[in-house]
Order: sequence, then structure tokens, then C-alpha cells
Amino acid sequence: MGMKSLNDAISKIIDYKFTNYAILEEALTHPSVNKRNSKNQIVSYERLEFLGDSVLNMVVSAILFKLFPEEKEGALAKRKTDLVCGNTIANVAKEIKLGGFIIMNNSERCNGGRCNLKNLENSLEALIGAIYIDGGLENVEKFITQYWEKLAKGMLDPPQDPKTSLQEWTQKNKLPLPEYELVKQTGPAHNPEFTISVCIEDYGKVSACASSKKIAEQKAAELMLEKIGKDASV
Amino acid sequence: MGMKSLNDAISKIIDYKFTNYAILEEALTHPSVNKRNSKNQIVSYERLEFLGDSVLNMVVSAILFKLFPEEKEGALAKRKTDLVCGNTIANVAKEIKLGGFIIMNNSERCNGGRCNLKNLENSLEALIGAIYIDGGLENVEKFITQYWEKLAKGMLDPPQDPKTSLQEWTQKNKLPLPEYELVKQTGPAHNPEFTISVCIEDYGKVSACASSKKIAEQKAAELMLEKIGKDASV
Repeated sequence: MGMKSLNDAISKIIDYKFTNYAILEEALTHPSVNKRNSKNQIVSYERLEFLGDSVLNMVVSAILFKLFPEEKEGALAKRKTDLVCGNTIANVAKEIKLGGFIIMNNSERCNGGRCNLKNLENSLEALIGAIYIDGGLENVEKFITQYWEKLAKGMLDPPQDPKTSLQEWTQKNKLPLPEYELVKQTGPAHNPEFTISVCIEDYGKVSACASSKKIAEQKAAELMLEKIGKDASV
Repeated sequence: MGMKSLNDAISKIIDYKFTNYAILEEALTHPSVNKRNSKNQIVSYERLEFLGDSVLNMVVSAILFKLFPEEKEGALAKRKTDLVCGNTIANVAKEIKLGGFIIMNNSERCNGGRCNLKNLENSLEALIGAIYIDGGLENVEKFITQYWEKLAKGMLDPPQDPKTSLQEWTQKNKLPLPEYELVKQTGPAHNPEFTISVCIEDYGKVSACASSKKIAEQKAAELMLEKIGKDASV
């Protein structure tokens, strides 16, 4: 599909038409394509993703600031974390069927690249960055508001992270606080994988791994909450 | 000073005049003031600080995106981290003498509240949030660009964090990678303080503490780099 047809097709879904086709193409190009510019540098959606991430953060912050005028900053921050997390972004990308528009090489496509959550998240962030560059804040605000305002309105209470929930549960049940421990670290330094265990008196230990200690702790806490839920019917 | 005089005084420095005095007052009110709204909730700069932080992040991202069109997102991210860190924001706050305008109680003032870096950082973020609410993106972009563009242009290479520098140093010197260890955790769960040590073969151990493990590791790495610099004249 040429860029003009792509622009026409995508504009029907996102209700925004690009003036600059090159920026739309950049926003949809997966790093696997190995597309290079005149200076032989790889061009992909990664730079626009950097920009789009901060644009999304700001617009969502402003939506929450206006929507919950009586809430403290801590509660707003919890809401925001949930609204701009990878899963939420990937869900919006699925809703607008963005996967079908991503330009990727055969190998990435055969490996399920069009459904890969990370690809969906990254390309939607890049698309947001591209709308901002091409159409300014007004247009990108319109796009983000269209999808995120209903999510923000649908969230009744500020969500709580699993580590906090687990800690509150132990306090309520007069148990010592959860103990987190780094079990092992594997993989090369630039791409490590951490295994973290969490231990609760009387409930034993569960562990989880992730590419950051913080995420591994959250995952372990989530598994422990499930275990507690089953054992103790919390 | 009444809010009109304060608006006049501050507008001469920041080159922006507020229409809504209440939002300016909120942006300058330290939590110590215990000011309450009609619903008996404390009003301070903390909500606007939440918003301003994301506005600053976005505008700085956009400045960097345009200023360094050939740089990869990783390099842009390193530049941004440095430009929106607490120290940089507090320095801009000092430059515009914001400390003198913060509304705080006696105790906070006597404790050096007008020079406190955290207060300066927070109130400047809040002021940015307030300009965004009162004057829109165009005005806040003008304000941020005035102070941050020269900082962005003055940064020749993307800065490197101390942990990465230390790791590269050990690799260059054929030593094992630095080993980080959590020495102790003190303070209550909602306000913990972590002490982290870093150990390098032949150079021993140094430690540092901070309110997050990540920051404590960075500080420890920084101290180790200083130590290595003195011992080995790197």
C-alpha cells in the first residue's frame, strides 16, 4: 500500500489525516525493516515513540487533573500509572486495529509481530508522537481524549499496586511485612532478568521474574495475592 | 503581598501574566501553609506539581526531538533525564529567584524553606502546571523553552549515568563487574531509606543511602568513581 492509501485508510480510523506522509511512515515502521535514511541511519518508530510517550503522559495527566479536581496528587499518579501502562496502550492499539498497519519484515510478521503487545504499544506511542509533530497539540489531544477519557472516567477508584495491596493485607492480618529477596540475576548486563521471591509468614514463598527488579517484585506480589486468595479466601 | 502585586512582580521575571490569580496562588503555596478550600481539603502546589512535571517532560522531549534529529531515542532519553532531574529544575528556580515567592509557614521559612532544593523544584513544576492551565501550551512552551533550550544546546554529548560509567571502567580495566549490595533499609515502609554498597576488586567498598534503591546505587557508583579517580588517576 502506498503512503497516500495508508494515510486514507488510517485517517478513517483515527479521525486525523497526516499532511506529512514521511512522519506517518516513520511512526509505522518497525525496527526490523532496516529502513535507512540518507545518512545510512536506521529509521523506525523508536524516536517518535520517545516523544509520543511524553505527549501521552502529559495529555492523560491534564485529563485526570481536570476530571478529579478534589483528588490528591498521589491518587492522580496511581490513576495515571494505570492509564499509560503498556497493557492499556496496547489495548487501545488493538481497538484501532493498529497491528495491521505496522510495516515490518517477514520474520517479524511470521513471529506474530502484528499481535505482539510491545509492538502495539510502541507503534501507538509513535503514532501519538507523529500526530503531535504533524498536527500540533490540539489534534493529538483530540485523539488521546477520544480513547483515554472514557478509560479515565470508567476507573472508579485510584488503582492500587499489588505490593501495596499485599502489605496492607499482612498488616490487617497482624503478620510481619512481606519480605522480598533477589533470588538470581541472569542474562547479559544490558538485558538482565531478575528473579525475585516474596515470603509471607504461614504462606511460604513465591517468585517471579522480569527485566527489572521493581516489576519482578510487583509480579511476585500479584502471585502471592492469588495464592493467599486461594488459601485463605481473602 | 496581595495576589495582584505578586502577579505583577512574578510576571516581570517569567514574562507571563496570569489571568486566574487563584491558580497562581495555588502554584506558590507550600503544603506547610495548611490552606484549605471550601471542602476543607488542603490546597497546595502538589496537584499542580503532578501536572507540571508531565508538561515539562513533554516540552523538553519535543525540544530534544527537534534539536537532535539524528540521535537515537536512547541518547535522547539520557539527555532528558538530565534536563528534568531535580537539580536542573531547582537551578532554574534559583535563576528566576522563585524561592522568595513561595508562600510557606514560619517554621518552614525558618528551616530554610526558601532555599530548600525540593521546595524549589516542586514549586517550579507547579508554576509550569499553572501556566499550562491558565495560558495553554503555547505560553508554557515559551516559558520552558526560554530556560531549557539553552541547557539542551549546551549539553554536547548525552550524559552517562554513574553506574554505566563505573561498569565501563571495570570492563576497560579487565576487572569483574561492580557488585551492588543492599546493606540496610531503615525508616517506615512509606518513607524508607536504603543503604547500598558497591564493591570493586582492588578498590574496596563504598556505600551511599537514598530514598530509593536505584538512586542509592547511582550515588554509590558516583562515590566509587571519585575514589577510583583519586586512587588510580583515571
